[in-house]
Amino acid sequence: MKVAEYIAKKLIDQHVTDVFGIPGGVILDLIYAFDKCPGINAHLSYHEQAAAFEACGYAQVNHSLGVAYATRGPGFTNLITGIADAYADSLPVLFITAHSGLAVGHEQRFEQEQEMDTVQMVKYITKFASTVECIDQVEAKIDEAISKALTGRKGPVLLDFSTSLWNEDVENDCSQSKSNAKHNVVGTLACESIWKIIEKAQRPVFLLGDGIRQANVCYKLSNYINDIGIPVLTSRGAQDTGRACREYYGYIGSHGIRYSNFIFAKADLVISMGNRLAFPVKSESFQKAIQNKTIIRIECDENELKRAIPNSIVFKEELSNFVQGIKEQSIKTSNYESWLNVCRELKRHLCRTDCNDIVDTVSDIFRKISDETIVVADVGNNEFWLSRAYEISGIKNRILYSKSFGALGCGIGKAIGAYYKTKKPILCVVGDQGLQLNIQELQLMTQEKLPITIFVVNNHSSGMIKDRQKSREKFVHTTLDSGFMTPKFNLIAQGYGIDYLQLTDDVTDKNKILEAVKKPIIIERFFDESIGLQPSLPKGKQMQDMTPEIDRDLFKKLSEL
Amino acid sequence: MKVAEYIAKKLIDQHVTDVFGIPGGVILDLIYAFDKCPGINAHLSYHEQAAAFEACGYAQVNHSLGVAYATRGPGFTNLITGIADAYADSLPVLFITAHSGLAVGHEQRFEQEQEMDTVQMVKYITKFASTVECIDQVEAKIDEAISKALTGRKGPVLLDFSTSLWNEDVENDCSQSKSNAKHNVVGTLACESIWKIIEKAQRPVFLLGDGIRQANVCYKLSNYINDIGIPVLTSRGAQDTGRACREYYGYIGSHGIRYSNFIFAKADLVISMGNRLAFPVKSESFQKAIQNKTIIRIECDENELKRAIPNSIVFKEELSNFVQGIKEQSIKTSNYESWLNVCRELKRHLCRTDCNDIVDTVSDIFRKISDETIVVADVGNNEFWLSRAYEISGIKNRILYSKSFGALGCGIGKAIGAYYKTKKPILCVVGDQGLQLNIQELQLMTQEKLPITIFVVNNHSSGMIKDRQKSREKFVHTTLDSGFMTPKFNLIAQGYGIDYLQLTDDVTDKNKILEAVKKPIIIERFFDESIGLQPSLPKGKQMQDMTPEIDRDLFKKLSEL
Repeated sequence: MKVAEYIAKKLIDQHVTDVFGIPGGVILDLIYAFDKCPGINAHLSYHEQAAAFEACGYAQVNHSLGVAYATRGPGFTNLITGIADAYADSLPVLFITAHSGLAVGHEQRFEQEQEMDTVQMVKYITKFASTVECIDQVEAKIDEAISKALTGRKGPVLLDFSTSLWNEDVENDCSQSKSNAKHNVVGTLACESIWKIIEKAQRPVFLLGDGIRQANVCYKLSNYINDIGIPVLTSRGAQDTGRACREYYGYIGSHGIRYSNFIFAKADLVISMGNRLAFPVKSESFQKAIQNKTIIRIECDENELKRAIPNSIVFKEELSNFVQGIKEQSIKTSNYESWLNVCRELKRHLCRTDCNDIVDTVSDIFRKISDETIVVADVGNNEFWLSRAYEISGIKNRILYSKSFGALGCGIGKAIGAYYKTKKPILCVVGDQGLQLNIQELQLMTQEKLPITIFVVNNHSSGMIKDRQKSREKFVHTTLDSGFMTPKFNLIAQGYGIDYLQLTDDVTDKNKILEAVKKPIIIERFFDESIGLQPSLPKGKQMQDMTPEIDRDLFKKLSEL
Repeated sequence: MKVAEYIAKKLIDQHVTDVFGIPGGVILDLIYAFDKCPGINAHLSYHEQAAAFEACGYAQVNHSLGVAYATRGPGFTNLITGIADAYADSLPVLFITAHSGLAVGHEQRFEQEQEMDTVQMVKYITKFASTVECIDQVEAKIDEAISKALTGRKGPVLLDFSTSLWNEDVENDCSQSKSNAKHNVVGTLACESIWKIIEKAQRPVFLLGDGIRQANVCYKLSNYINDIGIPVLTSRGAQDTGRACREYYGYIGSHGIRYSNFIFAKADLVISMGNRLAFPVKSESFQKAIQNKTIIRIECDENELKRAIPNSIVFKEELSNFVQGIKEQSIKTSNYESWLNVCRELKRHLCRTDCNDIVDTVSDIFRKISDETIVVADVGNNEFWLSRAYEISGIKNRILYSKSFGALGCGIGKAIGAYYKTKKPILCVVGDQGLQLNIQELQLMTQEKLPITIFVVNNHSSGMIKDRQKSREKFVHTTLDSGFMTPKFNLIAQGYGIDYLQLTDDVTDKNKILEAVKKPIIIERFFDESIGLQPSLPKGKQMQDMTPEIDRDLFKKLSEL
């Protein structure tokens, strides 16, 4: 029996009939197991905090086991208030979370995407909290958790499973799969040596991250880069930083811009600044992408340096010192014209690939907003479409992402905060799920008459997770048919006293966006549920060869540039 | 300069113009300081999670300091998702929380009401986290926190202040005020010895807590108590347990029932079962109340036994074993008739004291619901009015409270969970603030057509905190005029496709409550904002002499009974 199914059966043995949570990547298999298992019903909550409370209520009414599950990161942290509640009131609740890596150390921020030391955080508000890493731990830890929850003075317990376990058979042993990441030794070099490396490169690129802004070197650095004429790529979260550079060619990544990934793949030197290179270092795609090049890393955080990137030369340095230092080097402007022409050619061929109705609509909106408008992205597919629209539209507006933690529903809150700091109009782009998580904040928007436009990309689905469910036999909790619903936002808007506009193809309506920015408004557009997140980078593929594939002759031609 | 004001000034020095949070008891002074200080605006959020995100957005847009504040307990835990977000994205945010005790140990659940080891919980998702206990730490810790947030790789910091510091002068030193709680040695006795103690008592009472239900001894114990005819009191959270006993006389506490407190005060023996006696042990009122009596404690949790209660004899025993053991003792029914007559007399004189429009309305509703309906209380003043209505109405329905953690907004979630466990109709009583915190959960109610009636006690205010502000020069963030608002719940209901009924004095409307329980509905009634929480027990007063005072002649007469 698979671990996920085993858990479902164990819970049924404890008379658990209903469990609560929100689907997320690392717990999908568990949710599917619940879905398949007669006798147990998983309910879709609209906030993990509420899921935790639902499990608390479930546990409290008859002093029997309640269960809430959550994905890693914000899913887990959203549970914490409920965990503490269960602890204080001695409610026997089993909280189930999962992880794909395991953040054992505490120095790196975060060692694994979205992950943290869950056990440490809830140690003193649970009766028992443990990670489950190996198949031979599964039965004993589940038994121990359930037993501790229910015996003596009752209380909450938490099990944080390695996601790789869900589909293992309960009999197996995975003790041999434990591995210790090996850290390369990193060297430090004086500032001047960097130019010698750059001079030798034929196809150098700068790879900028949001650290550029944090170090306040955006203006100086972009001037410098413009002077030497090297093309620039960024992480997705730093695309507005890249826009300050003349030769900016978009953001790379597994959902990146095709021509950006192509340029990165072709580069022989990557100068990474303010970017923590948060790639899965051991992935085949990443290994392929970096094997042919040298990477210069400038990084001020000693703990990040423990992250071993092959072929890299590391400068442990504050960016501001570094930018000052390198600016003082004499600039021997090499001629990068032929390399830039390759970049331009790639962009010309691929710039309209991967567009869809949503990307085009958001691009249209971007072209209408004022330069000072700050764009705030929520989390989910909508944020990736927004990134693409930003790249296509060519706007230079400041844009805020929830970059690495990915807390769904943070958009409205961030929009409000950004407004108070800047007193500038805000355009907050949010999906129909993300909007619900903190919909109560509309109250603050309306009573303080904040000039925030919420553009709701309503595709009637929890799109990102739905995309991950496409290879399954059916959707669960991510579409209208599978249990994901949204309220009528026009009426909700009315309830909060906020203007509402349903966007159509009518140009007059689109122009209203210009007028709208002076007061709170919800603008909603309904999109086809079938629009997926494209392109993506399947495991092991070359980073420039994303899915769906482009015409093979064109791919060959571009590869040979 | 007072500490609270000092913090406001420090933040202004860092160009912080707007801060975010929700008022709570231990941080009130800080909020008032913000309110008074020109140059800084405190904004009322509708969820601490959103407050944290607002501070994150504020910090992110210009890489400058953002600030969110929260009260202890759920206020703090609601921040955690935002703290992790700030950590992952290197956002310089100062999170400010406060405590009145200090949970240094980890064994007691919780050592101090609503409090926990905040520093331990966020240690690995902050750059710096510290409690501030003494006045001589204030300046250095604030400086260190702000400096760590803003230098090097930026990130969140948390300061958890002792609430007693807010109004101290920054120059003072409080190092002498540190105290170590001294634990009395507790003894254990065999089961049979308890009857000998009871036999000697003239005015014994049972004091039951929710542990009775948890230990599943409710039925056996109430039969036993009914046989021996000793009067019963409970904690507020266990009033439905008390209702199973024939001679039940309500719940005690600082907002308890007057006659219950009177009876407790007059008792010479308290047999406490399933009750953790969560009184502030060192308070004068409590010391007065227990000086004239013996307390028998039956407690299975070794860590709770570290809580030293004067005049107590402690049995470390599972309740189920204990109830079995004591039942086997021969019952020599003493005649408690004269003591019971005193209890009855107290109740007769005081049963209509402290009623108000809200209590009466909720009592009316209680009398209309079916016996199987489960009552779920949210948090806030509404929960205390509900408790009183429960006592007055005489119903025996199961009732669920968020007993010790007090997480505002947990009502809807708990109601949903309780429904799934029992498949019984639910009446959830919630205030107009609590409803907002997880209003998104209406979606789950409506799409699954759950038979949950949400009764909204709408007094246009954040009542409990408003009551605590009454002695101040003005309200802040707790009334319509001071920034606390609610949406139009009728329209919100419509947005979620839920029926809505505004309750008036019309009897037909009231009868609709009976029909309503088969499907989700929001029933709202508007109440006068001025209705406060009464009675209360001012510091140091005798527990039976609550405020507002009853007629002095009557008080004297009842005291002499």
